[in-house]
Amino acid sequence: MEGISNEASSLAAHWGLEKLIAFYDDNHISIDGDTEIAFTESVDTRFEGLGWHVIWVKNGNTGYDEIRAAIQEAKAVKDKPTLIKVTTTIGYGSPNKANSYSVHGSALGAKEVDATRKNLAWPYEPFHVPEDVKKHWSRHVPKGSALEAEYNAKFAAYEKKYKEEAAELKSIITGELPAGWEKALPTYTPESPADATRNLSQQSLNALAKVLPGFLGGSADIASSNMTLLKMFGDFQKGTPEERNLRFGVREHGMGAICNGIALHSPGLIPYNATFFVFTDYMRAAIGISALGEAGVIYVVTHDSIGLGENGPTHQPIEHLASFRAMPNVLMLCLADGNETAGAYKVAVSNRKRPSILALSRQKLLHLAGTSVEGVEKGGYIVSDNSSGNKPDVILVGTGSELEIAYKAGEELRKEGKAVRVVSFISWELFDEQSDAYKESVLPAAVTARVSIEAGSTFGWEKIVGSKGKAIGIDRFGASAPAGRIYMEFGLTVEAVIAAAKEVS
Amino acid sequence: MEGISNEASSLAAHWGLEKLIAFYDDNHISIDGDTEIAFTESVDTRFEGLGWHVIWVKNGNTGYDEIRAAIQEAKAVKDKPTLIKVTTTIGYGSPNKANSYSVHGSALGAKEVDATRKNLAWPYEPFHVPEDVKKHWSRHVPKGSALEAEYNAKFAAYEKKYKEEAAELKSIITGELPAGWEKALPTYTPESPADATRNLSQQSLNALAKVLPGFLGGSADIASSNMTLLKMFGDFQKGTPEERNLRFGVREHGMGAICNGIALHSPGLIPYNATFFVFTDYMRAAIGISALGEAGVIYVVTHDSIGLGENGPTHQPIEHLASFRAMPNVLMLCLADGNETAGAYKVAVSNRKRPSILALSRQKLLHLAGTSVEGVEKGGYIVSDNSSGNKPDVILVGTGSELEIAYKAGEELRKEGKAVRVVSFISWELFDEQSDAYKESVLPAAVTARVSIEAGSTFGWEKIVGSKGKAIGIDRFGASAPAGRIYMEFGLTVEAVIAAAKEVS
Repeated sequence: MEGISNEASSLAAHWGLEKLIAFYDDNHISIDGDTEIAFTESVDTRFEGLGWHVIWVKNGNTGYDEIRAAIQEAKAVKDKPTLIKVTTTIGYGSPNKANSYSVHGSALGAKEVDATRKNLAWPYEPFHVPEDVKKHWSRHVPKGSALEAEYNAKFAAYEKKYKEEAAELKSIITGELPAGWEKALPTYTPESPADATRNLSQQSLNALAKVLPGFLGGSADIASSNMTLLKMFGDFQKGTPEERNLRFGVREHGMGAICNGIALHSPGLIPYNATFFVFTDYMRAAIGISALGEAGVIYVVTHDSIGLGENGPTHQPIEHLASFRAMPNVLMLCLADGNETAGAYKVAVSNRKRPSILALSRQKLLHLAGTSVEGVEKGGYIVSDNSSGNKPDVILVGTGSELEIAYKAGEELRKEGKAVRVVSFISWELFDEQSDAYKESVLPAAVTARVSIEAGSTFGWEKIVGSKGKAIGIDRFGASAPAGRIYMEFGLTVEAVIAAAKEVS
Repeated sequence: MEGISNEASSLAAHWGLEKLIAFYDDNHISIDGDTEIAFTESVDTRFEGLGWHVIWVKNGNTGYDEIRAAIQEAKAVKDKPTLIKVTTTIGYGSPNKANSYSVHGSALGAKEVDATRKNLAWPYEPFHVPEDVKKHWSRHVPKGSALEAEYNAKFAAYEKKYKEEAAELKSIITGELPAGWEKALPTYTPESPADATRNLSQQSLNALAKVLPGFLGGSADIASSNMTLLKMFGDFQKGTPEERNLRFGVREHGMGAICNGIALHSPGLIPYNATFFVFTDYMRAAIGISALGEAGVIYVVTHDSIGLGENGPTHQPIEHLASFRAMPNVLMLCLADGNETAGAYKVAVSNRKRPSILALSRQKLLHLAGTSVEGVEKGGYIVSDNSSGNKPDVILVGTGSELEIAYKAGEELRKEGKAVRVVSFISWELFDEQSDAYKESVLPAAVTARVSIEAGSTFGWEKIVGSKGKAIGIDRFGASAPAGRIYMEFGLTVEAVIAAAKEVS
């Protein structure tokens, strides 16, 4: 019933995943009762439409030969996945609860378990495995050992003949990254041409794909907007599984789930995916699974604020930064320029046990003096400062595209004789992990004059700016206008930061 | 491609929505190029599997008679919706851009517009409507007037014959609620038996359905866990459209979108839907549309924290409260007992231009002295207090199931001679809308000794407890254990609140 299963099943057929065999337990019962109350489609026909081979096992309760034959048939099918629809009775064997929804959500209970054992003529104690069953299953042990030995011999021969390729495969299996991989990341200076961080992101993606054999990914049908194509590779398709550009179609939820699968398959597979930041709403459940399941998926989210402009409020994320900062085990990273974007990829690739979300702009941004990869790794750091003794008159905190605004406001305020520190606040999670001494060196407790600016909800910013500071942000939905105009209308300006700084200091 | 369209289409066929005609623009182009790169299923077969009538118009560019015939055929189909697949050329008529993805994402440009006009032999200025076209379309004006007059006469006759029914229909069309509807809501006293707020919610739902003719809703296949069945009504199904229990199946995203449609159809239709709080991740995009589109959908979310117990971290919401507090135009309501639950329904039904999310417990909770409907309407209010002059020694803030913990901690601390105020913090959005004087009367600025307790992420709580206060919560994923045990393990206890209160005051 869930839409994600249709998204993933459509792609599975498109990609011709012939090894995929899905068993559909056609037991006609859902938690609220018979599936008839909400689900009367023909699943067989739908999957045939999706391009699957479909087999129906009519007696899933005791039709062992039928099940075996279905699996054999499925294995023989080439070029497409197979759905084996198995009609069963839920709670089969339970005299009073079989074929009822009460079997789904709660335990049978001791009395009904007894009745079921009697009904199925199963005389043994709980957890007892009878000798003949054990013997029957144990025949798989020597069979498995033989298969493993065969594989090992094959791999040894392969390794001898193809040393480099075998080493690459091993590195994907073990997850050991090539030494110095991070040196491939590009670096920038303030003289580098202003650019959108989505474009700078593509430079990092392409640099990483050259040095990381398991690095692959794609977009939900907006690769040309997300700037996520790997230029030296073609499309991963049915006939070209060696390529690394995945074309997910407009299927964000499926995309996130597929990347979780890739990341958890082998530690050296490092998948990224991409969409507009606001569309992470469609795959929020998959991102939650990345976080809970410790899958180091890289989420490339462009068009990261009202700065995307004319597409308007349906496309402009507001609460998304806050919503991911609140989610455990997620690295939510806001990047301001080239060096920060490269730094974010270093962090993302290094973190194989937690997902990273890289928020990137559609609009052009300056490369700022003082930004650095090392800064990104600390979560928050000083970008510019003319104070001494860790006692600035005011601290200006910016993130992503708004760091540039804080930076310029700092320059203006210094002209007026103020001691101003400008802090880039990339990732709350990473900053929280730093030592108290480091945190105090960036945000000294004694300095309560603080102003933050971020083109998103101010929810949560009290933690950084305190009750005496001021958070500039957007606590309403956006509007359609060019980026420059909308920033002005919403008060996200150098002038606003200067005014706030004077108010709080 | 999006999963939600499959969810909604499956339900549309199940419900036999014969008036629904969907046009599928089969132009073979998506933003990233030809749909062949990601989408090779048979849409026709899939929709036949879902139970739709499918028609294929092969020439959607100029086959006017074919299109007319398809619409006639679709209108004649009874018992099922119709999909008209219309094969077209995207950018038809543009000599250089037709049939290419460049037509999708950007404007043709002046030069190509000129070329297209020439190619289509359209000699007129922009926005000019030629006289013969105007005349041809104008024939619909008298036809429409006649149809409207016919409808009005029919309704007048109906109103004469069925006064009560006509008034009910009118109230659904206008959105005017029956006077005193809120008096139907149940009230509770501290002597009422302890109960889960999901059960108390069902009492309010059933009370409202009796007095509000447009009140209807259902769950995503967990009605018996959400406690959302309306007992005096049957199931809304193909043959029983007069009933009010909707069976959405396991289709949260479709459920949210369908409720948006119902709410926006007529102001007097008040839809609710239900799932576990953590599963709002699946329909977050629909909730965002409720907020942005000003649809007053009521989201009933039960199993609102680790308090749900044994199902474990996959089912335990952590960051969800914070994530919705950050979303504009959403009333995120945490309810502690019967009176607060009834109050939440008063707020939810009254707010027809913004969605409400009611977080409800699986576990039993006490009815507390001091909770009230009026309190809920203010967002935050004092539940118990032994201080004077608005100068408590400490303020304890609780939400939902944790209000009981704060309440008991307050009682203990008072035994030790402390002046303690206990505040229930239902809705940050509603509290923000109160006057400064009211806010000061609940949370006086001078009292910085504050402790909050909530079984969720502490993200954002600095706003309430300040830098000198303490927020007790959960900043990691949950675990599987009975509610009492897990609260203890995670430090959400009366003892922890007392210790924190002593630390901050």
